[in-house]
Amino acid sequence: MNTWVEGAAGSLFDIDNLPYGVFSRPGEEPRVGVRIGDQVLDLAPVAAAEMLDVHHVFEEPTLNPLMAEGPQVAASIRRWITGLLTDETERGLVEPHLLPLAEVELLLPVEVADYVDFYCSLEHATNVGRIFRPDAEALLPNWRHLPVGYHGRAGTVVASGTEVVRPSGQRKPPEADAPTYGPSARLDIEAELGFVVGTPSALGHRVGVDDVAGHVFGLVGLNDWSARDIQAWEYVPLGPFLGKSFATSISHWVTPLAALDAAWVDLPGQDPAPLPYLQGSAARGLDIDIEVELNGEVVSRPPYASMYWSPAQMLAHMTVNGASLRTGDLFASGTVSGAEREQRGSFLELSWGGKEPFAGGHTFLEDGDEVVLRYTAPGTGGGRIALGEVAGTVVPAR
Amino acid sequence: MNTWVEGAAGSLFDIDNLPYGVFSRPGEEPRVGVRIGDQVLDLAPVAAAEMLDVHHVFEEPTLNPLMAEGPQVAASIRRWITGLLTDETERGLVEPHLLPLAEVELLLPVEVADYVDFYCSLEHATNVGRIFRPDAEALLPNWRHLPVGYHGRAGTVVASGTEVVRPSGQRKPPEADAPTYGPSARLDIEAELGFVVGTPSALGHRVGVDDVAGHVFGLVGLNDWSARDIQAWEYVPLGPFLGKSFATSISHWVTPLAALDAAWVDLPGQDPAPLPYLQGSAARGLDIDIEVELNGEVVSRPPYASMYWSPAQMLAHMTVNGASLRTGDLFASGTVSGAEREQRGSFLELSWGGKEPFAGGHTFLEDGDEVVLRYTAPGTGGGRIALGEVAGTVVPAR
Repeated sequence: MNTWVEGAAGSLFDIDNLPYGVFSRPGEEPRVGVRIGDQVLDLAPVAAAEMLDVHHVFEEPTLNPLMAEGPQVAASIRRWITGLLTDETERGLVEPHLLPLAEVELLLPVEVADYVDFYCSLEHATNVGRIFRPDAEALLPNWRHLPVGYHGRAGTVVASGTEVVRPSGQRKPPEADAPTYGPSARLDIEAELGFVVGTPSALGHRVGVDDVAGHVFGLVGLNDWSARDIQAWEYVPLGPFLGKSFATSISHWVTPLAALDAAWVDLPGQDPAPLPYLQGSAARGLDIDIEVELNGEVVSRPPYASMYWSPAQMLAHMTVNGASLRTGDLFASGTVSGAEREQRGSFLELSWGGKEPFAGGHTFLEDGDEVVLRYTAPGTGGGRIALGEVAGTVVPAR
Repeated sequence: MNTWVEGAAGSLFDIDNLPYGVFSRPGEEPRVGVRIGDQVLDLAPVAAAEMLDVHHVFEEPTLNPLMAEGPQVAASIRRWITGLLTDETERGLVEPHLLPLAEVELLLPVEVADYVDFYCSLEHATNVGRIFRPDAEALLPNWRHLPVGYHGRAGTVVASGTEVVRPSGQRKPPEADAPTYGPSARLDIEAELGFVVGTPSALGHRVGVDDVAGHVFGLVGLNDWSARDIQAWEYVPLGPFLGKSFATSISHWVTPLAALDAAWVDLPGQDPAPLPYLQGSAARGLDIDIEVELNGEVVSRPPYASMYWSPAQMLAHMTVNGASLRTGDLFASGTVSGAEREQRGSFLELSWGGKEPFAGGHTFLEDGDEVVLRYTAPGTGGGRIALGEVAGTVVPAR
């Protein structure tokens, strides 16, 4: 299938991609767009002109109303957009509503309900265990039995491009007698993938592994900024709090699940076999390649296909106790780290706790550093598609 | 000051209390009310009749728009309501809008943005440490330096009276080789106090200890239901997750901060002195008495005045890293436990890990058990006021 949109065919945003976002133009209300090539299709006026009965979901400042319509409506809308952008006879109607990316401002696409972060990479969990608890078993006893996760702060999920103010707080080096207050000296990234819930579930009922496509709308790139010194001092016994809650960046674009139909792969293998509620044919991985770029240089290439726990298992585990889902819930994979040093998804691991500088002397983030996470996957058209990138620059503590 | 509302004077809901809630009547939209005695004043029509410029905040299904107006407007509205209910000349206008509690349905009062739960009771933290980690120091090294906290699930905060479905999940007794799946056998309560944020703060800026009254709108009773067996297996290293996320109950009524002006007391004492960002004249405690009622019998009386960390310190700590506040953020104290056995705020502690049955043979919660938490404090009128109670009944696992 070929699009008539110039410059899109063969690009990472070809007709088999079509991620959704929210944009605004000076003096206009934020609304929903879909990306094709280097342009954004302003969906609201086209949907109104075609008298689509769900046109109102495009006139909103977040994707939540669109996502809440459920997977059948999402599939219909994707077919409709594909038709608009491939059928030459639609060109006259559609072309006036194609806006160059440079002429719009992209916004946070989702009103995040609850944000949960998991810890699904065996290599990351093992590395962190070795660095934080050198005298103990690297992997804790529960790790191979369940996808370990915790709730993060939904209110500080920000859009790609938002500056990250270096957080201050308490930290205590092991050799010090008491903690001190000051800016974090071990500011880090975590290269992750995020999953956005569209269809809610009822309190007291669980969502099974094979129900994942009925609830997840799409994927975002995600950087879970982390202050390792604050985290190390605060995290027992209730887990990470201020070491994470100052900012989590997500991409402007939400890639619908359907765009990743060609990206599913088997998991590397789970031993021991998980309990039955974590089993199902949808317990599969995604062949998504990530690039971590620091000040313009690629410093790591974490492979999402190496993850131990699958997105469907995260979702099933998160709801096994009857916790309900809401439209806008965001759950993330945890840091993606492969087996090789140049596949690690955090500076903590790349510098092995700050002891082994990388990329020309870097250990943790310095003021002014810019990090960009980029994601690509096989598309259904035979080429590759890009997921939304996540950029952020560190600015000094206030 | 005396109210003309019959039955209110001298009650726990006298003119010095005036908590806000959200109610509905059959066939009518949910809206905001204020409680006086055993009646709810329907504020929207009275405000419209008096041409109050903020009357729209009462026509909403949550308190969030009212809370977002900020402390000065909140103080004006409280003065206006006090005038309505004390001035006999207003009686003709107001009385038709006083609805008996029995004729309305009370709803979840707040759309919860982020939910953070702290761990502010020295006695509770010590008891839990002794029970969960018998071979180690009960109190972890960070505990006296910062109010330990974590994010909970905002989407499963429910209103008092909501049935609590016994959660299922993974649990592994220490002597077992592998975890099994099934209903929690150690379902528990946590008697807590919750604080609701009205006025937001900006990302990257911190809220000081003495700014607490500028951001906190009011207080709710809170029961942080906990599945101890699920929690014990999952909680390392990222903290509690499914052991807590199935339900957190809050009261129907939000007591404004101004109603607690007579309840502030000095903290029991902090040693060592906290870091400067946790110091300030607002770092004080609240003389609120709690009753834990199990199936109609009072089984514990936790004193909030015994808490080590103050509400103002929780707020200052939560934002010290620049995390922003949103209207509707809820933060809670953690289990309130006093020094005596009959002052403990959880069944885990009351039964000492299930080993010492209490209240006629109880250890953890059984299906059909009903728990009610009740709260009273000194009012500004010389008597006592009640905060909103929190009730919940356990129903069998699905």
